Amino acid sequence: MTHDTQPASLPSNRSTSLLTDMYELTMLQAALRDGTAHRECAFEVFARRLPNERRYGVVAGTARVLRAVQDFVFTEDQLEHLSFLDEQTLEYLRNYRFTGQIDGYREGELYFPYSPLLTVRGTFAECVILETVILSIMNADSAVASAAARMVTAADGRMIIEMGSRRTHEYSAVTASRAAYLAGFQATSNLEASYRYGIPASGTSAHAWTLLHINDDGTPNEAAAFQAQIDSLGVDTTLLVDTYDITKGVETAIEVAGTELGGVRIDSGDLGALTRRVRRQLDELGAHNTRIVVSSDLDEFAIAGLRGDPVDAFGVGTSVVTGSGAPTASMVYKLVEVDGHPVAKRSSGKAMTGGAKKALRAYRATGVAVDEIVYPFDASTPDVGHLKSAELTVPLVRDGQVVDGQPTLNESRDHLAAQLLTLPWEGLALSRDEPAISTRFVGFPSQ
Amino acid sequence: MTHDTQPASLPSNRSTSLLTDMYELTMLQAALRDGTAHRECAFEVFARRLPNERRYGVVAGTARVLRAVQDFVFTEDQLEHLSFLDEQTLEYLRNYRFTGQIDGYREGELYFPYSPLLTVRGTFAECVILETVILSIMNADSAVASAAARMVTAADGRMIIEMGSRRTHEYSAVTASRAAYLAGFQATSNLEASYRYGIPASGTSAHAWTLLHINDDGTPNEAAAFQAQIDSLGVDTTLLVDTYDITKGVETAIEVAGTELGGVRIDSGDLGALTRRVRRQLDELGAHNTRIVVSSDLDEFAIAGLRGDPVDAFGVGTSVVTGSGAPTASMVYKLVEVDGHPVAKRSSGKAMTGGAKKALRAYRATGVAVDEIVYPFDASTPDVGHLKSAELTVPLVRDGQVVDGQPTLNESRDHLAAQLLTLPWEGLALSRDEPAISTRFVGFPSQ
Repeated sequence: MTHDTQPASLPSNRSTSLLTDMYELTMLQAALRDGTAHRECAFEVFARRLPNERRYGVVAGTARVLRAVQDFVFTEDQLEHLSFLDEQTLEYLRNYRFTGQIDGYREGELYFPYSPLLTVRGTFAECVILETVILSIMNADSAVASAAARMVTAADGRMIIEMGSRRTHEYSAVTASRAAYLAGFQATSNLEASYRYGIPASGTSAHAWTLLHINDDGTPNEAAAFQAQIDSLGVDTTLLVDTYDITKGVETAIEVAGTELGGVRIDSGDLGALTRRVRRQLDELGAHNTRIVVSSDLDEFAIAGLRGDPVDAFGVGTSVVTGSGAPTASMVYKLVEVDGHPVAKRSSGKAMTGGAKKALRAYRATGVAVDEIVYPFDASTPDVGHLKSAELTVPLVRDGQVVDGQPTLNESRDHLAAQLLTLPWEGLALSRDEPAISTRFVGFPSQ
Repeated sequence: MTHDTQPASLPSNRSTSLLTDMYELTMLQAALRDGTAHRECAFEVFARRLPNERRYGVVAGTARVLRAVQDFVFTEDQLEHLSFLDEQTLEYLRNYRFTGQIDGYREGELYFPYSPLLTVRGTFAECVILETVILSIMNADSAVASAAARMVTAADGRMIIEMGSRRTHEYSAVTASRAAYLAGFQATSNLEASYRYGIPASGTSAHAWTLLHINDDGTPNEAAAFQAQIDSLGVDTTLLVDTYDITKGVETAIEVAGTELGGVRIDSGDLGALTRRVRRQLDELGAHNTRIVVSSDLDEFAIAGLRGDPVDAFGVGTSVVTGSGAPTASMVYKLVEVDGHPVAKRSSGKAMTGGAKKALRAYRATGVAVDEIVYPFDASTPDVGHLKSAELTVPLVRDGQVVDGQPTLNESRDHLAAQLLTLPWEGLALSRDEPAISTRFVGFPSQ
């Protein structure tokens, strides 16, 4: 049975329950049958490595995960499609509500290899079927936030705007905007993200706008395009000056707008050389306050390369929404404990430490992070001697209910900004290297 | 707040209208004000290059685009959020329905640099605001399909299953499954994709399943896990044998299941060496028909590398849903014609040919593609001499209505499979190189 009448990409209700791999439900069925379904388990979300040998990762998506778990319910329509399952399993799903516990890193926290990002506790049955939706959200959002934070650092205080919606899935675009904002971007071009999450929306104009303005004989009329944009949006708008010739474009822009023009955007060419030339030209024309906005395939390296140039704002598209070379955070969801016994697979290259875990981060008196300490979930907090420490594992869900007082998006954004200041200075470098701080496992039996 | 203007059949969450960049609406406002909004325009979707210097691309997402254009309507709720627009613009959007024409490549068609993939004609106003949603869909779906088709070729007729949902945005996962199936994958792990698009669902079990099965003292009991899976799913199921020791896992699997076991899955290690060893072991145990399924970070190169090994099925995750190094197809949506005049920007490195276009592909008598010919939309079909030719540009939308007889997903899948056979043999190679066939522009004034 297919549902071609469904919308292009959203289910007709908010249920997240089919955003799931088939094997989770067949494992559920087998577990209901052999009685293991009700064993008390702990599953853990973690990443074995940071993308592209970066120095740190950014946890993002937590708030969306909590929502998705609440919305993980099966409608009769959906159950009808699951005819590969037996009646006992369908009945279990019909009544399904997650009733367990989730603890983990808050959104906007830094993470490193093997940080225990989320610990999901409950029966095997109720936890196993959440694997895909939890990972999809965490992997997508953390990939974008982890890349975006590096771009924010590279922009070094200058305005940075997310405008990559067109280069990624239409709904991935919306949450990518959210993740970029979390990481410190100031605005997004995406209206749904602005609508849904309250992120400031921003935009200039496209080449199409300039190209639309032709004379009756088909010849270009850039001045008419600029004039119409100013008439509609005011002189503080940003004019796109590289449709034809940039020098001529800048000249026309100031002729039409006067020296109080808000900004000009350059979307092609050697941005370093061009911005220096355009800045000189603007200054010569007396437009000292006219900002220069650049776009055109910028990533963190290109942004850093423009640090010495007269750029006032960066518009970043493809690279931020695709995680700048790492489109997924490669997080996994692994069973680590069954009825109080730690469990762990031993597959080649994929070994892990069993047992539910918590973590804290230790800091020098100066506030610089020293290392991350992972310890058994039920153990007391390890002693860090003369160092200060902060608990990273916080309660997120209790008995199926989201714990009150979850941070807002802006609070998580502020938290991340503060955390980035705790990294050893070399931890903010863009080059490939070891994680900025090391992770120590304390209180586990040696493997 | 009322929803009077909304067609009764349209739930509020189906609207695609805010999957849009802000600047499209501010350009609309400026155009309504200066009178250019109603100029007759043509916008074109094309890609300047193929991802990663591949030999061909696969058009995907077309059916989803047509649906999204139908669903591009503004609810009162949405309009209320657009308070940055003036009343005239809000009124325009309140009544918005696309009423123009769309022509283009069908889904499942091959494409090359500068292939005119979609031509959207109508007033500037009605076309300009579709940019983001059209590109998001085409870029995401074509990126996945273009990577997936290479994996299907590399699998060389063996079963290939998409199981990457957890590594990409939760809804991107659903359409990635669709794009992979279009490209020739036989099944998906994703239940929403199966539900929505009728794609066969498939799955084995996770390491969590084996780890769940411990004895009272916490020691592993792999046999119990295998037995329970077979009891529930039958002996034709696939057992995951690499949780602890693979050789022991295979031995236990056949002990429990007998020699009629459907398959074993290996998800780690050197898959070439392991599959040869496991095949020998299975054969020695008499399990000659037990299939070997491999997964673990496979991409088209890894799949090709296993061509000589006893692999019966490939499970592909991260690399297919993230486009195997090219998570976006980098397609753009450019204004090419205004009131019958061709227009084109001249930005450095981003030059293009103005005017609405069509294309055909020329073939030798043997059926091998020779080149792609792009010509003016209103010109007659170019003469290809002794070659055969096929029109690539087909009508998709007329006066805002989707043209009847659009292909089903399976028809597009068959079309692609047939088209891949027309490529010159070196066009199927995985290595980086020039596009498999060249594209010629015929009938345009020289630039």
